[in-house]
Amino acid sequence: MAHKKLGRQTLVFEKPPRIISGATIVGDMEGKGPLGKFFDIVIKDDTWGEKTWEKAERKMFEESVRLAFEKVNLNPERMDCMLGGDLLNQIITASFAAREIKAPFLGLYGACSTMAESLILGSMLTDGGFFDVTACVASSHFSTAERQFRMPLEMGGQTPPTAQRTVTGVGCSVLASSNYEGECIMDNIFVTGGTVGRVVDMGISDANNMGAAMAPAAVDTLVNHLRDTERDISYYDLVITGDLGSFGSLLFSDMCKEKGVDLGDRHLDCGNIIFDKNQNVDCGGSGCGCSGSVLNGYLLKRMHEGDFERAFFMATGALMSPTASMQGETIPGIAHGVILERGKL
Amino acid sequence: MAHKKLGRQTLVFEKPPRIISGATIVGDMEGKGPLGKFFDIVIKDDTWGEKTWEKAERKMFEESVRLAFEKVNLNPERMDCMLGGDLLNQIITASFAAREIKAPFLGLYGACSTMAESLILGSMLTDGGFFDVTACVASSHFSTAERQFRMPLEMGGQTPPTAQRTVTGVGCSVLASSNYEGECIMDNIFVTGGTVGRVVDMGISDANNMGAAMAPAAVDTLVNHLRDTERDISYYDLVITGDLGSFGSLLFSDMCKEKGVDLGDRHLDCGNIIFDKNQNVDCGGSGCGCSGSVLNGYLLKRMHEGDFERAFFMATGALMSPTASMQGETIPGIAHGVILERGKL
Repeated sequence: MAHKKLGRQTLVFEKPPRIISGATIVGDMEGKGPLGKFFDIVIKDDTWGEKTWEKAERKMFEESVRLAFEKVNLNPERMDCMLGGDLLNQIITASFAAREIKAPFLGLYGACSTMAESLILGSMLTDGGFFDVTACVASSHFSTAERQFRMPLEMGGQTPPTAQRTVTGVGCSVLASSNYEGECIMDNIFVTGGTVGRVVDMGISDANNMGAAMAPAAVDTLVNHLRDTERDISYYDLVITGDLGSFGSLLFSDMCKEKGVDLGDRHLDCGNIIFDKNQNVDCGGSGCGCSGSVLNGYLLKRMHEGDFERAFFMATGALMSPTASMQGETIPGIAHGVILERGKL
Repeated sequence: MAHKKLGRQTLVFEKPPRIISGATIVGDMEGKGPLGKFFDIVIKDDTWGEKTWEKAERKMFEESVRLAFEKVNLNPERMDCMLGGDLLNQIITASFAAREIKAPFLGLYGACSTMAESLILGSMLTDGGFFDVTACVASSHFSTAERQFRMPLEMGGQTPPTAQRTVTGVGCSVLASSNYEGECIMDNIFVTGGTVGRVVDMGISDANNMGAAMAPAAVDTLVNHLRDTERDISYYDLVITGDLGSFGSLLFSDMCKEKGVDLGDRHLDCGNIIFDKNQNVDCGGSGCGCSGSVLNGYLLKRMHEGDFERAFFMATGALMSPTASMQGETIPGIAHGVILERGKL
């Protein structure tokens, strides 16, 4: 048994890394949504002056990292490693941004779970004594994702009511080791542990119902997290899922109840809160950039202000591929959980 | 400065993880190549009884993990985490295999550098005290890669002389913590450290010349590794690159010399040794499965037999995407390095 592991899937940190900075850049529609004021930069045109959406997403990724470091007066060269990913094939957003940033880079693919995957990995590598300063980043872009995963936007296709809208957004968290003495813009928010998810598949095959595909994975991770840590759900002020959307959130809540976990009023879903119902987004937002921007824009700021003491951040990914779907495969999901606690050292 | 880090990019392990088992499954052509006898399973038909090549690759991935655990009489349920990836969009090979294996899973994308990325991450997480038993896996498949990255095979397209052939193969290493007391089929082969690569781009834009795109990244990682560790190249019996191929290897060797590193006769490239020149493969093999299968089939067995004491295994990835190429982007490369040493504890 490894000494920092609890049960089957959960890790606890001896020297919890601290989130010293975070930055977000989002699209126009996200900026006009209920969380608009929490984001650092809102781009009005979704090409952001670039020739293609893909190049725009890459620029958003890179600039969010630079901004997160700038906020704490750190040169990005100071970073030991960048961990991150996006939704595009061959994660070109992250890879091409890493080319510009020139830091050691570990590319991840966890679909929309990437923000949590990067944080959990970054935290382990920090607590493990390897890194002092790490950037954890995830991005998505509505227009790059639509043409890759579904249909060309120019077709003007209709969406069914269970569809979610891929968020144009990127979030970057800067993690520092417990003995880091530089600037910090957050009021002592630590990553105290995490639960690595398993791939769970309940047989959903509809790419327009990803909330339902991901909900069982979120339930699996949460239930196993509580079992591993022997904690009651009341330990947390907040359980915040990535992008289950409104339909997926209902499923998640019901399935948790079936497993004996009553979430009560402590559940929020990034996909549910980033858009307003009047914005015509069907079941809400999705994409790595959804949980990435809501975590770094909204959640960390509210924790900083003392609104939440202990949050379980669980980004969820639908491991779909157009090729797999065409071959009759169902959509497996995964959820990684990160424990965020305020004021503990 | 983190206490297990040397210089800018290199990590050293206090309790080096041990590679206790490895398994490989390769295609027919790889089986007929010079290393054929080193591989565990050679599939004669590249669908391996499945309906599609993608399903075949997923089965190869899953079965290699099961086989690696079987060799040391371990139930795959004993694994703390599986780290791995492949070349397919949304890494569906790894994700769908993880669904069957049911272990906690961290999905990686490092193109053909994935075998080294998974080993370096797995080793950090083991040395960091989080995991006891980890599977590090990488796969590729000629037919799935061709249709995704280049042209439908049915077209019968011609390749230029700098092209490389994607290896149909998968390699799985099982890492265990230093105090693991179970069976081990290797004679004390430890991962004593590693160097995390940076993304390097020298402006190559030809998807049929990936060796040239990746060679500069391999040079960058090797030179920085030697600088970080203050080691001379003579410290290693062997520097083994992933899949530079014959043209890329020449470039690599020349560029190293320019940087003052004379490789002499200690360099091998997995892409160069997996096929015979008579097999008509242009510049050799490529793909995550190339370094994955050569590491776990050939290199570890030769180390086990005492032919090499200290090897620097450096898998190289070309971070290309058809979308990026169509948008006029060049092909960035990355190389992660892993130090393998025999008989040290």
